[in-house]
Amino acid sequence: MLFRSLPPATLLSPVPAVMISCASETAKPNIITIAWAGIVNSEPPMLSISVRESRFSHQIIMDSQEFVVNLVPHELLKAMDFCGVRSGRDLDKFSTLSLTPISVQELRFAPAIQECPAYLACKLSKSLALGSHTLFIAEILSVSIKEVFFDDKGAADFNQMDLVAYNHGQYARLSDPVGFFGYSIAKPEVLSRRMTKLK
Amino acid sequence: MLFRSLPPATLLSPVPAVMISCASETAKPNIITIAWAGIVNSEPPMLSISVRESRFSHQIIMDSQEFVVNLVPHELLKAMDFCGVRSGRDLDKFSTLSLTPISVQELRFAPAIQECPAYLACKLSKSLALGSHTLFIAEILSVSIKEVFFDDKGAADFNQMDLVAYNHGQYARLSDPVGFFGYSIAKPEVLSRRMTKLK
Repeated sequence: MLFRSLPPATLLSPVPAVMISCASETAKPNIITIAWAGIVNSEPPMLSISVRESRFSHQIIMDSQEFVVNLVPHELLKAMDFCGVRSGRDLDKFSTLSLTPISVQELRFAPAIQECPAYLACKLSKSLALGSHTLFIAEILSVSIKEVFFDDKGAADFNQMDLVAYNHGQYARLSDPVGFFGYSIAKPEVLSRRMTKLK
Repeated sequence: MLFRSLPPATLLSPVPAVMISCASETAKPNIITIAWAGIVNSEPPMLSISVRESRFSHQIIMDSQEFVVNLVPHELLKAMDFCGVRSGRDLDKFSTLSLTPISVQELRFAPAIQECPAYLACKLSKSLALGSHTLFIAEILSVSIKEVFFDDKGAADFNQMDLVAYNHGQYARLSDPVGFFGYSIAKPEVLSRRMTKLK
């Protein structure tokens, strides 16, 4: 047989590896690492994260109805991993990891993580109990990107962020771009201009 | 200012880049490329994909209530991009791209793509109209991985698959692993054993 069949498992790959920051009227800022995240709608821009009910951040998000998705660069890999295996019930992750909570204009409680290259402010739109996890579907209210990642034409260069992905239990960095959306049918002049730029 | 704030946008990154194969009683096999995908639950294993209602595959999935998520290696990057910008209304993507549909035991209509390293058979559980896209939440019924990716202990090595990610309009390959889940608090002996193996 060409393929070996296995029981059902969460083996979509690669998936994001992001740090979710949250807080509420009664809870101080916390961080939880999430790989079960994805974009779910384009207009309006929406994303989802899935969180176990037992996690400390679950109640915080239920209470505050908001959270921030912080993109994670290779430089913060160890801190990101740590936030996925330790609980905010036991320690203050911001101070333990020397991370800086910064206020987010559109949100009431949830801070962003200053050390991350970009963050998305999110307002809860719907929550669905699916079994082990609650699916939080949220509207993206704004996106903030560090000034240093913009080129002189005002475009943000995500390749400079050195983001990490989650690949079946392991973390990986992203290579230089190997193509762009639509490149398979792009005209030769577009291809030579953009693919050269990509290198 | 350290950060520049932008209007809401779908800038979660990286996200998956996968090929969804589907078919129905009346529609022949088709492929659609999706980056709006993610794991949404662990027990039972579930994932979601978001598809515009105007897309050819949208009706096929609504009719058949099933689809297959095929993981995409760098080798199939161009075919994957093509499946994201051309419609199955206009051409047969399997034959045009010389891809081979293979039957999936747990499903009635949707085939898998033989050339992909792994695929997840999915049964629709719930669909939610969110605006531009329909969020299809599905149970993962089984996972199939090519024999060649298993080591002699029966573990599948996803690093050998050379999978691609979607990073803000561009595609990227994954680096060799730079850490594993829990490595930030692993004991020295575990760390030296596993991190050496990772290199």
